[in-house]
Amino acid sequence: MKHPVVATVNGLEDFRYIDLVERKIENVKQRASLRDIAAETGVSIATVSRVLNDHVNVAQRTRDLVLQAVERRRHEVATRTRTVYVRCPYVLTDYFGLIVSSIAETLKLHGLRLVLDAGESGQGTGALRDLPGTDDVDAAILILPPEEGDELVALSRAGYPFVVVDPRILPLPDIASVSAAHFAGARAVADHLIELGHRDIAVIAGPEEWLAGDARLAGHRAALAQAGVLLAPERLRHVEPTTAHGRSAAAELLDLEPRPSAIVCFNDKVAVGTLQAARERGLRVPEDLSVAGFDDIDLAEATSPPLTTVRQPLQEMGRIAVTQLMRVLDGHQPEALHIELATTLVVRESTAAR
Amino acid sequence: MKHPVVATVNGLEDFRYIDLVERKIENVKQRASLRDIAAETGVSIATVSRVLNDHVNVAQRTRDLVLQAVERRRHEVATRTRTVYVRCPYVLTDYFGLIVSSIAETLKLHGLRLVLDAGESGQGTGALRDLPGTDDVDAAILILPPEEGDELVALSRAGYPFVVVDPRILPLPDIASVSAAHFAGARAVADHLIELGHRDIAVIAGPEEWLAGDARLAGHRAALAQAGVLLAPERLRHVEPTTAHGRSAAAELLDLEPRPSAIVCFNDKVAVGTLQAARERGLRVPEDLSVAGFDDIDLAEATSPPLTTVRQPLQEMGRIAVTQLMRVLDGHQPEALHIELATTLVVRESTAAR
Repeated sequence: MKHPVVATVNGLEDFRYIDLVERKIENVKQRASLRDIAAETGVSIATVSRVLNDHVNVAQRTRDLVLQAVERRRHEVATRTRTVYVRCPYVLTDYFGLIVSSIAETLKLHGLRLVLDAGESGQGTGALRDLPGTDDVDAAILILPPEEGDELVALSRAGYPFVVVDPRILPLPDIASVSAAHFAGARAVADHLIELGHRDIAVIAGPEEWLAGDARLAGHRAALAQAGVLLAPERLRHVEPTTAHGRSAAAELLDLEPRPSAIVCFNDKVAVGTLQAARERGLRVPEDLSVAGFDDIDLAEATSPPLTTVRQPLQEMGRIAVTQLMRVLDGHQPEALHIELATTLVVRESTAAR
Repeated sequence: MKHPVVATVNGLEDFRYIDLVERKIENVKQRASLRDIAAETGVSIATVSRVLNDHVNVAQRTRDLVLQAVERRRHEVATRTRTVYVRCPYVLTDYFGLIVSSIAETLKLHGLRLVLDAGESGQGTGALRDLPGTDDVDAAILILPPEEGDELVALSRAGYPFVVVDPRILPLPDIASVSAAHFAGARAVADHLIELGHRDIAVIAGPEEWLAGDARLAGHRAALAQAGVLLAPERLRHVEPTTAHGRSAAAELLDLEPRPSAIVCFNDKVAVGTLQAARERGLRVPEDLSVAGFDDIDLAEATSPPLTTVRQPLQEMGRIAVTQLMRVLDGHQPEALHIELATTLVVRESTAAR
């Protein structure tokens, strides 16, 4: 699946907002440098500014002092270890933790240093706006950023090098990003259920406004449609992807008449909740109900029965993100702006012929 | 449980080794600074060294130049964001990922920056020896460090501020560390099985040379001994703590005559392997066999039946590690050198009365 690269955003309001953010970023950046050089040389910020803007009314000695300090700063920046800011505004569980581990390993191979924000500390507002003014951080990798697209677009237009892993929304104009092939993976697992003879398949989907939620649901629908089945609205639930939400959504679906013969879930945690709801009703999996997940985190092998799921190439996502970033850092446009990595269907024991 | 603070290490060999490492560290540190100042001022390293050692045969102008550069460096170090190097030489799964997330959040609250090495990239040799020479990293948090104690002791004697989370071995002379109360937690879960009437309890323990392996096994033995039971050698296995190793060790234990009525496991992954081995033999859990884990990672709730286990306060471990480090960074000795955090017994459905 390819996403078009759309170079505009909606409405004038957004443009004005972006413009404002851009100017703010430039200001912060400039102020930081001027202040540092003034502090280092002992002259006023105004004088530093005059030197840098080639004003004539500055004494030669002062001018030399400032220019030497500027040169020293450039040298320092050029010789120190390049640093990448990695932000994951979620706890590093089996899913995000594997991506961050892979990014850490790959940055190290390239001789780059990783500065981390993870968990709640990555959710603070303004983190992105401060980035371009941070002298000793050269680039960023943003994992599933919660920001609206506008703010990411503004950061990109300010010329700041960064890559998005697992974008929440697409398209992101001119921004390099990496994700799993949600659509193809979701279609494959639904095809698997259809091949097993299931037609009455219920879906517990993720949040509609997420790329992953939308694309996986589209994959499920596509497989069903090809088998001549339309997903009925009462057989579809949208949930926050947790075990508890999966359990309550599954409970509702399992109380429908007729009861669906299979439930395909947004991810493995939702599938674990579905197994729990089935067990509460005395339903055997896979004899009475087939259940499938997505992600193939450690959980998927610990359940009874072990889960049929879709493996996301999490390590590969980390590696490709760094490779993309290296190109952006070197001033190149990446060859493909949005990269989707193939998923793998993993058939275990939670799905069976109807 | 308290660990004595032992101020010596075994044998002369060790002392010589430590001495060597210490001198190496000091050399690296000094060379780095001299080189930087020489590069900045354009004089030779030898001249910088002469100025810093108050030699008389240096021109006044050169002396001023070098001393100004040194002063500038001190100012830079004093004003920039303090940085903590966090090393986790394992993939950030549910266990390590939660600790690192908590450290990230707490460092952010203190206004410190986190530089991360995780996964394989944290396993490189020499990482610790380079630390004191790294100008822009102020301190370190080392999670379950694989190094022998000597190398950690040498780093501590070189005056480098760091804290160990989840130490593999204890005691670590003069080194601040944080871990869960392995002994007390393991004793509590074995007591729980004994209260349920179990006497023939088999143990799948962790590696003997690990603090966690040793202390948890001691906890299990203590509970059994209080009930008048000695753990028979054939009812004890030591394994690498993975699901696969747990499964094969459990297979052996379940084939013993008479079959144990309960198996207590080093951690939840080993317990998942034990559930699998029981299922392969047609044994029902908990009717035919009680199974208990340790850690309470996400897995523990996804199994069928959900696991009785011991919750480790992973977030709290991260927070306390940062608090300890702040004291060390400020030049204080932490009040308690080794802190053990209380665990909680979590009774779910994998254990029942015999």
